[in-house]
Amino acid sequence: MRVQNHTQVPSNDVTMEGAAGCRVRWLIGEGDKAPNFAMREFEVAPGGHTPKHFHDYEHEVFVLAGKGIVIDGDKERPLAQGDIVFVAPNDVHQFRNTGSEPMRFLCLIPNSATGRAVTVVPECGLESS
Amino acid sequence: MRVQNHTQVPSNDVTMEGAAGCRVRWLIGEGDKAPNFAMREFEVAPGGHTPKHFHDYEHEVFVLAGKGIVIDGDKERPLAQGDIVFVAPNDVHQFRNTGSEPMRFLCLIPNSATGRAVTVVPECGLESS
Repeated sequence: MRVQNHTQVPSNDVTMEGAAGCRVRWLIGEGDKAPNFAMREFEVAPGGHTPKHFHDYEHEVFVLAGKGIVIDGDKERPLAQGDIVFVAPNDVHQFRNTGSEPMRFLCLIPNSATGRAVTVVPECGLESS
Repeated sequence: MRVQNHTQVPSNDVTMEGAAGCRVRWLIGEGDKAPNFAMREFEVAPGGHTPKHFHDYEHEVFVLAGKGIVIDGDKERPLAQGDIVFVAPNDVHQFRNTGSEPMRFLCLIPNSATGRAVTVVPECGLESS
């Protein structure tokens, strides 16, 4: 058994194309020999976002703090603390912080996601500044 | 994609042998056709606990609120908001609320846990009152 506070887990910039102001902690995963899935925590700065993208595996998300939206294909859906999001395989999705505080959420993925293709969707002018 | 607040998900008593003051919400799971793992939220009342037990699948836990301990075999380890717990397969474990507010935590399990054996460990007098 491993017990640790999330703040003790190293936080790293998300360098993937399309991400901005986004950091990630791998809370539970390979280092634990977790057999089936991994728990990550994302922290998105005000105005920041994850890439708009899709892939053939799912996300299971729990919003810990902050306010924002999740892009669901061509729709925007509001997000606040305590919201859950099930992103099904191949759903186009993006998390955006529209508030004034960091937005933090857990995002779990299956181990089988490792090495699988991720397709970034262009954002029609949103990134032109 | 499904977006919902966790409070909108029905909460049910945990009726398993060895549980006390314990409720569960299945936040993401079968109803979503989640392909690999399920997200549950447990709420344990002050003085309450989950069963002391073990099984051959893992838990990935994130403490959302409250204070307590996790029994790790024959040790007690303190728990507070923001703590993560990786319960490896066959670890004997139990979550106990030792605070004055509800303790809430996410606990994720693989889909392959369905129907697998769970062994409850007797608690030597703790339940005698």
